Amino acid sequence: MRLIGFDPGLRHTGWGVVDTDGNRLSFVACGTVSPPTNLDLADRLKCLHDGLMQVLEAHRPDEAAVEETFLNKNPGTTLKLGHARGVVLVSPAIYGIPVAEYSAKSVKQAVVGTGSATKDQIGMMVRTLLPGCNPPSEDAADALAVAICHGHQAAVNRRWNPASTAAINAKGV
Amino acid sequence: MRLIGFDPGLRHTGWGVVDTDGNRLSFVACGTVSPPTNLDLADRLKCLHDGLMQVLEAHRPDEAAVEETFLNKNPGTTLKLGHARGVVLVSPAIYGIPVAEYSAKSVKQAVVGTGSATKDQIGMMVRTLLPGCNPPSEDAADALAVAICHGHQAAVNRRWNPASTAAINAKGV
Repeated sequence: MRLIGFDPGLRHTGWGVVDTDGNRLSFVACGTVSPPTNLDLADRLKCLHDGLMQVLEAHRPDEAAVEETFLNKNPGTTLKLGHARGVVLVSPAIYGIPVAEYSAKSVKQAVVGTGSATKDQIGMMVRTLLPGCNPPSEDAADALAVAICHGHQAAVNRRWNPASTAAINAKGV
Repeated sequence: MRLIGFDPGLRHTGWGVVDTDGNRLSFVACGTVSPPTNLDLADRLKCLHDGLMQVLEAHRPDEAAVEETFLNKNPGTTLKLGHARGVVLVSPAIYGIPVAEYSAKSVKQAVVGTGSATKDQIGMMVRTLLPGCNPPSEDAADALAVAICHGHQAAVNRRWNPASTAAINAKGV
């Protein structure tokens, strides 16, 4: 099964694709979608959507996972993040695949083993868990961490509920 | 030229369509898109996007306008509004028309004449300015108010910059 993770942001949205085979994960691709900042908000969101759809068409994942956005104390900043996150959630749904959500703490726990891991620790563990990957940005590394977290969760679900996972696998393959 | 206004919300997004002919406005249609609340967030946003695309395909507006979202003190609520607003901004951009934004104050000033107008005053003035309309909800009335505001702004732009408006009209017709 192929999974895509996203780390949403209006300036930079990271994406990362991994393949899962049982408990094994392997790196496929990663990158960042960065809409031009000189456009109107609707056009920036359209560029973000177009970029995400190109990535989805190129790598054809079976499921998507999106990191929950950090709630900024500035409500204007939170609203901007919300705009980008709305587009990052709806684009894979428009593409036609299920979209899961994970808190930043869950992602850190899945990848580093502690919910208080630093960005550097996440980047290092992503490179260790996915040999061959060299994320071009922190956002891309975070997106791969989200995909790893979703892969682990899928393995746990399979262990506890084999019937439902068989159905997911049948759809995924 | 045909204009569509939106009042974004995750539970209910109002929409309203008006035709403009010089300074004259006439009512075309209005309504509300209300995605089921029992779905996951990505699926709710997909339902919102699908509903908006149906409205756009049915009424074929030339330009869209979206009201700026009230910044709630609760950052979680602001984030949810941001998700919905991201989808409401990107859907007409995906459909291929320009998308303008107006503050709630600008909309109230354009429709009632004061930036501190109440919801009831807006509803009453929308019914007065657009004979024949009977908005089924406050959200639909607010969306028509946004479309009226955009219509007034387009008339002002035409007065001050006739060349650019000729181009817009040529595209619109």
